[in-house]
Amino acid sequence: KTGPEPWDSLQSPGQRRGLSAQPGPVHTLNLRGIFPPLTTPFSATQEVDYTQLEGNLCRYASIPFRGLVVLGSNGEYPYLALRERLELVSCVRRALPRDRLLLAGSGCESTQATIELTVSMAEAGADVALVVTPCYYRGAMTSAALVQHYTEVADASPIPVVLYSVPANTGLDLPLEAVLTLAQHPNILGIKDSGGDITRMGLMVHKTRQEDFQVLAGSAGFLLASYALGACGGVCALANVLGAPLCQLDGLCHEGRWQEARDLQHRLIEPNLAVTRRFGIPGLKKAMEWFGYYGGPCRAPLAPLSSPQVEELRGIFSANGWL
Amino acid sequence: KTGPEPWDSLQSPGQRRGLSAQPGPVHTLNLRGIFPPLTTPFSATQEVDYTQLEGNLCRYASIPFRGLVVLGSNGEYPYLALRERLELVSCVRRALPRDRLLLAGSGCESTQATIELTVSMAEAGADVALVVTPCYYRGAMTSAALVQHYTEVADASPIPVVLYSVPANTGLDLPLEAVLTLAQHPNILGIKDSGGDITRMGLMVHKTRQEDFQVLAGSAGFLLASYALGACGGVCALANVLGAPLCQLDGLCHEGRWQEARDLQHRLIEPNLAVTRRFGIPGLKKAMEWFGYYGGPCRAPLAPLSSPQVEELRGIFSANGWL
Amino acid sequence: KTGPEPWDSLQSPGQRRGLSAQPGPVHTLNLRGIFPPLTTPFSATQEVDYTQLEGNLCRYASIPFRGLVVLGSNGEYPYLALRERLELVSCVRRALPRDRLLLAGSGCESTQATIELTVSMAEAGADVALVVTPCYYRGAMTSAALVQHYTEVADASPIPVVLYSVPANTGLDLPLEAVLTLAQHPNILGIKDSGGDITRMGLMVHKTRQEDFQVLAGSAGFLLASYALGACGGVCALANVLGAPLCQLDGLCHEGRWQEARDLQHRLIEPNLAVTRRFGIPGLKKAMEWFGYYGGPCRAPLAPLSSPQVEELRGIFSANGWL
Amino acid sequence: KTGPEPWDSLQSPGQRRGLSAQPGPVHTLNLRGIFPPLTTPFSATQEVDYTQLEGNLCRYASIPFRGLVVLGSNGEYPYLALRERLELVSCVRRALPRDRLLLAGSGCESTQATIELTVSMAEAGADVALVVTPCYYRGAMTSAALVQHYTEVADASPIPVVLYSVPANTGLDLPLEAVLTLAQHPNILGIKDSGGDITRMGLMVHKTRQEDFQVLAGSAGFLLASYALGACGGVCALANVLGAPLCQLDGLCHEGRWQEARDLQHRLIEPNLAVTRRFGIPGLKKAMEWFGYYGGPCRAPLAPLSSPQVEELRGIFSANGWL
Repeated sequence: KTGPEPWDSLQSPGQRRGLSAQPGPVHTLNLRGIFPPLTTPFSATQEVDYTQLEGNLCRYASIPFRGLVVLGSNGEYPYLALRERLELVSCVRRALPRDRLLLAGSGCESTQATIELTVSMAEAGADVALVVTPCYYRGAMTSAALVQHYTEVADASPIPVVLYSVPANTGLDLPLEAVLTLAQHPNILGIKDSGGDITRMGLMVHKTRQEDFQVLAGSAGFLLASYALGACGGVCALANVLGAPLCQLDGLCHEGRWQEARDLQHRLIEPNLAVTRRFGIPGLKKAMEWFGYYGGPCRAPLAPLSSPQVEELRGIFSANGWL
Repeated sequence: KTGPEPWDSLQSPGQRRGLSAQPGPVHTLNLRGIFPPLTTPFSATQEVDYTQLEGNLCRYASIPFRGLVVLGSNGEYPYLALRERLELVSCVRRALPRDRLLLAGSGCESTQATIELTVSMAEAGADVALVVTPCYYRGAMTSAALVQHYTEVADASPIPVVLYSVPANTGLDLPLEAVLTLAQHPNILGIKDSGGDITRMGLMVHKTRQEDFQVLAGSAGFLLASYALGACGGVCALANVLGAPLCQLDGLCHEGRWQEARDLQHRLIEPNLAVTRRFGIPGLKKAMEWFGYYGGPCRAPLAPLSSPQVEELRGIFSANGWL
Repeated sequence: KTGPEPWDSLQSPGQRRGLSAQPGPVHTLNLRGIFPPLTTPFSATQEVDYTQLEGNLCRYASIPFRGLVVLGSNGEYPYLALRERLELVSCVRRALPRDRLLLAGSGCESTQATIELTVSMAEAGADVALVVTPCYYRGAMTSAALVQHYTEVADASPIPVVLYSVPANTGLDLPLEAVLTLAQHPNILGIKDSGGDITRMGLMVHKTRQEDFQVLAGSAGFLLASYALGACGGVCALANVLGAPLCQLDGLCHEGRWQEARDLQHRLIEPNLAVTRRFGIPGLKKAMEWFGYYGGPCRAPLAPLSSPQVEELRGIFSANGWL
Repeated sequence: KTGPEPWDSLQSPGQRRGLSAQPGPVHTLNLRGIFPPLTTPFSATQEVDYTQLEGNLCRYASIPFRGLVVLGSNGEYPYLALRERLELVSCVRRALPRDRLLLAGSGCESTQATIELTVSMAEAGADVALVVTPCYYRGAMTSAALVQHYTEVADASPIPVVLYSVPANTGLDLPLEAVLTLAQHPNILGIKDSGGDITRMGLMVHKTRQEDFQVLAGSAGFLLASYALGACGGVCALANVLGAPLCQLDGLCHEGRWQEARDLQHRLIEPNLAVTRRFGIPGLKKAMEWFGYYGGPCRAPLAPLSSPQVEELRGIFSANGWL
């Protein structure tokens, strides 16, 4: 599909929502492509280092990303005060060309806090709010409760909302039936799904084909498979490190060059596992340093890698031909 | 044991930690008894209702609780802004007799934020900080990382710390080896364990018998069993509703009247399951209303019970002879 | 309670079931006490070694066990052919005094095979059939399906049936509601529950108090806690090694000497974890050898312990004062 | 690749293994294509109905399957006596053209029993042994134990072995490192992986590219995705019902017609979930009847669908255009 340019929608969010009373899909932001969920650079004293952030953004400018995610799980958002979160979004907005989308994480545990932060994110310049599932009372987070939560947030948000399901962190999979209901909301654009259940990904695409609902793969490990099932893009931690190859993989898939895509995908699986499940954000930041980016420390209690872990991580990138 | 009064320790936290260089256990706050983890009363508009809170505190004053927990899981703390949390603790402190302990939840995701909130809680009048395990990056929350986190918090805290493990909410069980290491810290008093693994409870008591480490059962369902294994008290959601019977159960166990204790425990299991796993905080607040307390609504996305759920809940209290 | 001797019931199983039409509990076998779930001795070539089995039985004769379990999980029953299973039961029956109960595992995946094996076990001399939950199609093992399965087995069995729930092996917890329904069946005596959820144990005792349903703790780790909640006995792997102390613990609990019981229980938790979750049957068999029993190899694919594992195991028994 | 015909290898299994001393891949059976894991037809009295089996085989003859699986999970093998299992394989062998492969399930809990049954299966006419992971003692089924188990089985088997990992039934995922080690064994052809972790599927293909190891998707839900990552075929319960469309999907993927493949895959996901996770084998057998096959009852404790369940199942096939 050839969707409108992002600024079309951005100039008239009210108008856009106003269209929702009419049947049929409204014009939506096109999320097709790769989004790195930025890590948050900290100084040696664990303060946010905006200079290093701008340096990384400058380097990312030459990679054909569709946009950036600020304050995703890899951004250590639970370790950031609200004022830090807003300042980060403002900073990225200033540095980012207008043709690149800025998705900002704005999910909190309560509905009211999520709404307030979403509004603030819009004011700080976010194009889209990425709203993680509340999860502390996961036993009570029924499909009905989550539908109600997201509906209130989307109703109140001045910018489009993308659902965000990341069971490895939240212990909660946004139920498929909730996704299908929410897909009909005019201000809900799509979902970032990091669970990796490819059958579910396919079913989400299939069951929302009337809704112009956009499915983003939440990890580089199942990017090709998600595209093969109809996903439109990916939010991939590994894009902080190997942004260009991931954009290349995106291109190969969209051009239907699946055999080349497969070979590239194969070489990305182990590095991706290494900077996510295996070594987490400390591993991701370490790997960024080998590719010319600022990584730096994480905030405690996230601990730096030990020397043997660094060696193992390096070996994984080498064995797959990236170092 | 006949421990010192709480104010002994409170008058000299520095001195207390100073004693830690000497071998043997230091004098510690005695946590023996029942603590209700207070629900947070909200008005119809979901604002904190301090008048209702004071009303509940007034009613609790006649029950021989050892103290109160403010901002435990049942207090909806993830839905409260930091200023609300501090104001709640101040309010409870003003209303609470000095011979009752005030435990305040102060756990955040980052170590630094936890330290800051713990210090603020002490200033607001908390006797003890109850520190939940950070959990969002649970894959990275190794035993070593958690030991480091709690050690830094306990080092910096002006008041004693109680560990808090609640896997149903956090998806994370504080590893036994971490508990055993932390039990040696002079400013760590004990643990509230809500996991319900009675073998683990017994092992924690057994392996910390040199440390004067106090184990609190985190739920009324396994209170008797925990006491039988050597726990000293309980932080029980059900105490918001059935405080007197729980204090009676505490007494029977401490007096060795196990047969009577068993009969009482049996009648508490189903009501406890109903206000925790089955219906959660909305169920707990509803049941409070039947016993003369203010319950009121929860903050969204926690949803009120449906009418059939209310009937089921009521039936459970009736069938066990409480209504 | 002072139940009838086991042979009372055994002489008239038909008559016993005939009583079931009348209200109130029927006379049942008394399962109060400790039962070791026998390991199956194998020779160096992994054949069943009946001579060593008889040797172990001879040594167990001096310990006041209530009876023995043959073909529980610790008996490696899934590795034994049906003819081996029957021969084992016959062999134990010949060696066992009549005042000791012989419980024989007879659970298979299909209802029909379970019935056939149960009948054969009765003919081979078993007093009670211990029937594990079928589990391969666990997604289809609803409460209704399991109630139907056990009802058919109990209807057809010439000997009383004990339910057996062991989620660590089966990945399936026999649902509480199924237990409560089955507790009303006149030929179902009780349950061996190895799950360790003490709240559930208490609830099973409480909700079946009209049925004379007997609850057996399935592991030494939560034996005291189970007794405190009303369980009547235990089937404990550790009884293969430390039979006398476990019978002593049983006695202390039944006499209400809870403080002594607690001290003994504490010293049994780590050895129990070591011969179950940590090192499994190979660890159990190795530890048996240190206490004068024949342990020997397991059948493949269960692998023998490495030397460091043997040392660790030995250290755990030493540290708790058993070696 | 254009592999040898199956009989090439079958004529000289000894010679085939003899080749294994040489570097490089040996000639192997080509598993490319779709295999239905046959359901086992039972009469009203739950006896195996060989006439109905032959009727189904006759109908399947016109569908371009690569071969058949007998005694997979959908064959209710845990409910069949050993003599029934062998008779089933003999019956299918007699009815099956020689150019279709017969894979027979031969996994048991013990290594020795698995070897014996595998040898018997070869004698009964199986081309390949499909060996499920032993699982009852899953806590002890380490990667090393499983490698040892499969190595002994593959060493002793006169026919090639395919590994079989089905965590929904076994509660055990054959560890990737074990798969990679076993892929080097000359008598291990590949794996049927029913877990659905597409990242793992891709990694298995990638890391065994030197070994000519063949990866089969264990379910129709992730068939296209598996092919996109390099799997060569599928063993799909749904092929009992919708064999022709699944062979068409196989063809579209192998021809690189991914867009058409996606549309077809999308329509297969819900029917597949319905006959597997949602309604299991009773649902699969019921759906078979609507497409001209014999379904019939399952053995107890698998229960027949209720009328509302049948309606729901039918609705799922209708909504996706299959009825």
